[in-house]
Amino acid sequence: MAITVVGSVAFDTVETPSGRIDRCLAGAATYFSLAASYFTDVRVVAVVGEDFTNKEQAVFDARGIDTRGVERAPGKSFFWVGSYLDNLNEAKTMQTDLNVFASFEPKVPEAYQDSEFLFLANIDPVLQKRVRDAMPKVKLVGGDTMNYWINDHRENLLKVLQGLDILLINDTETKLLAGHRNPVKAAQDVLGLGPKALVVKHGEYGATAFFGTRSFNQGGLDAHHPFRAPALPLAEVVDPTGAGDSFAGGFFGYIASQPELTPAVFKKAMFYGGVMGSFTVEHFGTERLQHLTREEIEERFAIFRELTHLD
Amino acid sequence: MAITVVGSVAFDTVETPSGRIDRCLAGAATYFSLAASYFTDVRVVAVVGEDFTNKEQAVFDARGIDTRGVERAPGKSFFWVGSYLDNLNEAKTMQTDLNVFASFEPKVPEAYQDSEFLFLANIDPVLQKRVRDAMPKVKLVGGDTMNYWINDHRENLLKVLQGLDILLINDTETKLLAGHRNPVKAAQDVLGLGPKALVVKHGEYGATAFFGTRSFNQGGLDAHHPFRAPALPLAEVVDPTGAGDSFAGGFFGYIASQPELTPAVFKKAMFYGGVMGSFTVEHFGTERLQHLTREEIEERFAIFRELTHLD
Repeated sequence: MAITVVGSVAFDTVETPSGRIDRCLAGAATYFSLAASYFTDVRVVAVVGEDFTNKEQAVFDARGIDTRGVERAPGKSFFWVGSYLDNLNEAKTMQTDLNVFASFEPKVPEAYQDSEFLFLANIDPVLQKRVRDAMPKVKLVGGDTMNYWINDHRENLLKVLQGLDILLINDTETKLLAGHRNPVKAAQDVLGLGPKALVVKHGEYGATAFFGTRSFNQGGLDAHHPFRAPALPLAEVVDPTGAGDSFAGGFFGYIASQPELTPAVFKKAMFYGGVMGSFTVEHFGTERLQHLTREEIEERFAIFRELTHLD
Repeated sequence: MAITVVGSVAFDTVETPSGRIDRCLAGAATYFSLAASYFTDVRVVAVVGEDFTNKEQAVFDARGIDTRGVERAPGKSFFWVGSYLDNLNEAKTMQTDLNVFASFEPKVPEAYQDSEFLFLANIDPVLQKRVRDAMPKVKLVGGDTMNYWINDHRENLLKVLQGLDILLINDTETKLLAGHRNPVKAAQDVLGLGPKALVVKHGEYGATAFFGTRSFNQGGLDAHHPFRAPALPLAEVVDPTGAGDSFAGGFFGYIASQPELTPAVFKKAMFYGGVMGSFTVEHFGTERLQHLTREEIEERFAIFRELTHLD
């Protein structure tokens, strides 16, 4: 079953203790769609500028990702410069040029309308809501956001959350959204805002899923215990950029590849999310995600299982 | 098989967002021995003052803990005042009175000499080494330490680490001991200092075990993958004091209760460690640890399994 994702397709310049990469293909929708492409069909809604060339297009084509919803606009693509020299767990933004993204009006191609899944990557909640409303037939909607939208665009964000099935955010964002420091109470507060499930990402410590009292159409996940998936302890994190978007891509990609969203599928999806995130951070940008095999993914899944299972 | 533990038996005054408790029975050896007592025989080496009354003695007696190695000295017991009002994950020390602990000369009773296990709780590494040397027949030695000893008594601490089988410390202590920020490389560095296994505690995120190239006498845990055990997401952490010592008590207590230290036993011990830590933080001081049942422990173990296992 196909997933449509809306979000940024961008260029990043990143410096980390391992080195530096200039203007690499990046953006939340890029990480998400590459990660999800190993599991299911992916369709992208985004905008790029004239600096998006055949070389970048070829990355999407090689993974069979549908880019008919990627608009080409005059000007330059979204550009971000970040540094992890001080802290590998948190990027310091040095420069953000919205460029063509500043006037982005997402248009969903008619051919995307039979997508069963929709992922609203981290962009202006007004745009998230517009894409959600433009795809009334989707069965499951996931989303991400960030501190900026939580702090300064809360009303708009709350409208998005009301229509979400699964929200994927990190610890800091969860506490900020909830106004509560205890992780369980914060999760309960966020679930009260609309999402049926909340996946809280803990960086190097993995992720925890919390479930609300409303059930999914497809499964029986209501009033469920939380579930915790690990991250892989890595001897070198080359570039953490995109780990969260890759997690989301692996997570939703796996769910979309299964006939039904059962509790067992949800749990395995958390593991696949961690697996895809662990690959991403091993190289700069989307390099590692571009050339994986399903065998490598399954091998790492087995390591994640061994890392956490008693038998 | 019996465990001997050396460490502090103390009184704590603690304030947390949930309230305040004055002069409650505490100390690393107290938390450790109470937690371990649900699994195996425990013997304590410590010193207390005249403020340690029949009431405190009764707590140890009720759990069948051998206190023949707890010396009664003139003066007051070790006393600590800590606050978690600013940060529930890290205590702010308001007052430390070593009292009788300042001149502590641990003496191991002859009756303890057949203990197969020894745990060196967080005290001066000179004392840890002395107790280790006084018990040449033990088969497995575990230990803990803290920033102060790592920073200011490093040479003495290194002598202790050389003779350790399993070291249990937290993330910060691991990085400080290794001088490395990457968690995997830091763990490898610490394993190079002597311990055959390192259990790194992550607070609310659980704990990860790393294994060195030297094997255990009893098992085949060399060159093993890391193993990660969860912590239970709790809606209220009343008092985090002693969570790490309770983890160590559950961990070593379970190992000591088993005929052989296999990889399967090591992994289950990590889970029992997390279980005992999760009980401790639910109430102030050692209150919760004093009145558990094995059934409650097994029920929570089952929750920990459900929290992490795919099937």
